[in-house]
Amino acid sequence: MQAWKDYQEQHKDRFLNELLDLLRIPSVSARSEHKEDMLRCADAVKQRLLEAGADKAEIYPTAGHPIVYAEKNVDPSKPTILVYGHYDVQPPDPLELWHSGPFEPVIKDGKIFARGSCDDKGQFYMHVKALETLVNTGELPANVKFIIEGEEEIGSPNLATFVKANKELLKADVILISDTSMLSMENPSIDIGVRGLSYIEVEVTGPNRDLHSGVYGGAVANPATMLAKMIASCHDENNHITIPGFYDDVVEATPEERAKMAQAPYDEEEYKKDLGVDSLWGEKGYTTNERTGTRPTLEVNGIWGGYTGEGAKTVLPSKAYAKISCRLVPNQSSAKITEKVLNYFKSIAPAGVTVKAEEHHGGEPYMTPIDSDAYKAAEKAINATFGKDPIPVRGGGSIPICSLFEKELGLKIVFMGFGLDSDNLHSPNEKFDVFNFYKGIETIPYFHKFYAEMK
Amino acid sequence: MQAWKDYQEQHKDRFLNELLDLLRIPSVSARSEHKEDMLRCADAVKQRLLEAGADKAEIYPTAGHPIVYAEKNVDPSKPTILVYGHYDVQPPDPLELWHSGPFEPVIKDGKIFARGSCDDKGQFYMHVKALETLVNTGELPANVKFIIEGEEEIGSPNLATFVKANKELLKADVILISDTSMLSMENPSIDIGVRGLSYIEVEVTGPNRDLHSGVYGGAVANPATMLAKMIASCHDENNHITIPGFYDDVVEATPEERAKMAQAPYDEEEYKKDLGVDSLWGEKGYTTNERTGTRPTLEVNGIWGGYTGEGAKTVLPSKAYAKISCRLVPNQSSAKITEKVLNYFKSIAPAGVTVKAEEHHGGEPYMTPIDSDAYKAAEKAINATFGKDPIPVRGGGSIPICSLFEKELGLKIVFMGFGLDSDNLHSPNEKFDVFNFYKGIETIPYFHKFYAEMK
Repeated sequence: MQAWKDYQEQHKDRFLNELLDLLRIPSVSARSEHKEDMLRCADAVKQRLLEAGADKAEIYPTAGHPIVYAEKNVDPSKPTILVYGHYDVQPPDPLELWHSGPFEPVIKDGKIFARGSCDDKGQFYMHVKALETLVNTGELPANVKFIIEGEEEIGSPNLATFVKANKELLKADVILISDTSMLSMENPSIDIGVRGLSYIEVEVTGPNRDLHSGVYGGAVANPATMLAKMIASCHDENNHITIPGFYDDVVEATPEERAKMAQAPYDEEEYKKDLGVDSLWGEKGYTTNERTGTRPTLEVNGIWGGYTGEGAKTVLPSKAYAKISCRLVPNQSSAKITEKVLNYFKSIAPAGVTVKAEEHHGGEPYMTPIDSDAYKAAEKAINATFGKDPIPVRGGGSIPICSLFEKELGLKIVFMGFGLDSDNLHSPNEKFDVFNFYKGIETIPYFHKFYAEMK
Repeated sequence: MQAWKDYQEQHKDRFLNELLDLLRIPSVSARSEHKEDMLRCADAVKQRLLEAGADKAEIYPTAGHPIVYAEKNVDPSKPTILVYGHYDVQPPDPLELWHSGPFEPVIKDGKIFARGSCDDKGQFYMHVKALETLVNTGELPANVKFIIEGEEEIGSPNLATFVKANKELLKADVILISDTSMLSMENPSIDIGVRGLSYIEVEVTGPNRDLHSGVYGGAVANPATMLAKMIASCHDENNHITIPGFYDDVVEATPEERAKMAQAPYDEEEYKKDLGVDSLWGEKGYTTNERTGTRPTLEVNGIWGGYTGEGAKTVLPSKAYAKISCRLVPNQSSAKITEKVLNYFKSIAPAGVTVKAEEHHGGEPYMTPIDSDAYKAAEKAINATFGKDPIPVRGGGSIPICSLFEKELGLKIVFMGFGLDSDNLHSPNEKFDVFNFYKGIETIPYFHKFYAEMK
């Protein structure tokens, strides 16, 4: 649509600068010292939504970080699109690996480097600018609502309460989310599923104090060694997860889906080269795409214990810890798996140590029906701006709130992600291509258009 | 000897206060930020030796932290006793577990709480005050030399160079060291052996950056998981160490020695209660005393990798690390074992990760001949002040420089330790009983007397 193109061309520099301003706010939800930054960020998001043309935008406090809600109504007879995103980001550690400050965005080789550039500030902001485009060209074809939360990276602990209490406010026909990625700009794709999550922390306690490893070494169970043994026992020689009942509820992908997935472009050499590894790892009998999309996993996200400073300290530590998370697939239940993993670690605690294992947060896996109007509208929108139909793929990440929305609001979700797997989400030097940012802003209005036409 | 007793009784408060002053200097050799404190501490030790009556005391710079040397000569025809000690201390971490500041010594229930109170400031300082006693009562029976180094806790990397370059200066008849412990004040003991040490650090690298555990989890080897598997493989189900050739050179304790050791007082319930563990751990077929005295060990001193901060971060780490040390017994060689352990970790590196393993520092095991004059003099000295002969035991710790002294100076070493295993060496709340401190100052002069008489 020429009018959209012209408007966006005219304002593209401002669009980008507005995003950079948003990226300068260190909205790290996991860190209590950033509480003020979270409030600042929520307020900024609210202002931008109003500037973009929202009829109203409000900040809803929660027990944790606030939720930003906004809406723009055109006509009650038109469908309503509910856009979900999150303004919080992952902690930036390890800081020393960043080439530039995580909250001092820089543009290099056409890429925006900053924590949150892709996950998810850069992506939800495409929707804000798409709204502005549609409003200012007088072509908004549907009602739009925004729910931008501040706790996605810590498992959305307070979203359910908000959603349950505001079903009328959130009434809509479909939920649109840009918090996923595409295979590439040459091979546009749509995530039709996201994995669930189960996240626990394990604390292993041996002696009641750090001990001299010479005086006591060899006679007292070392919690770091015991933790290592416990973690080592979680995968067998085929890298299957050994936790009893872990795979009980897994729905295997159909031969058809596996065949379709096998067609998605994948260059193993490129994949290894990008990661700097000489060989890949994973569950025997499955391809890389299946391992990251259709199979559940168990990963150590962090481990620590004893002396980790400079030089050498001959200590037998009192405690050792690990953060461990599982990715889940249909029809695994986060609560069930969390319980199984917690019980497993407690049950295998070796003599001489005690194990405390607690839940961090979880989320259910989710699949999008590819025969829905929303999916078809997204497919058409991508075709309109990329010149080809998107490939349906299963994403490896998790968006825990999907099943919540479906359950509480009875709505289906369509994912239109414009990021790339190589965007270093949750890693140092997270980036988002300027090209992708603009491509998203260009594509989203078409979704509104086609979706409104189908209804 | 009444004169000694009177002198010590008269000056005991000053003796204690002088030690507290020394403990206030945070002489942590492993931490570069304490370089200045190390110099300050070396200078304080020098001054105290001069005040105690040394003819001369000097600070010898090294490539690392300086060595303090002092001597008091009475008569060339008399034997010379070389006292070794160290003024450096272990890092105080974890700080949050200390009940009072590690470098703000407090006396509670007759115990001196501070880092270094027992290891080794409190113990080498007993010799300084013993010298003062003998000098000021005009009864010094032998020549005395002091070598107090500042790098014992980091493996004495520069001591060998100094000793080799100063053989004449260090010429003596015996080396006396108080850097070990006693079973108890009721059961005085003498360590007749110390274990050797081999210390390595392992770095496991997976992908070239931290990854999103959802996008890549299940398809890329996780270095934390791989490190856990490697560590878990170091002990078999009987807690024997599995590293090829690890036990090759171990000299088994004789049935006689094992029988003698079995007589040493040991209350397993008390031992477990003190450590707060419900059961002990260790190599099958050996008692606790044997496990900590006559058997080699492998312990994880520290492990870290990935996200270890507050909350949850869904990251697949790029790197994971471990500090691992082995205690060695006669006739294991530190260099040989270090090589075996390094090679083991490199050899078992799973596909998908690379392993870098490097040496920290080491030391050889050492045994004292119990038929030597020096041992007999120590035995008599302890009998004189404790009213009973000491029990010969094998200590679990390491004093890497023993074999160096023997090799370079051709001297035997006798250990007169007055600490207790429960003194929290290398742990939070390190302590040294005031009673033991004074008992050492009371006992050491008798060693000088009896040793001089035997020669």
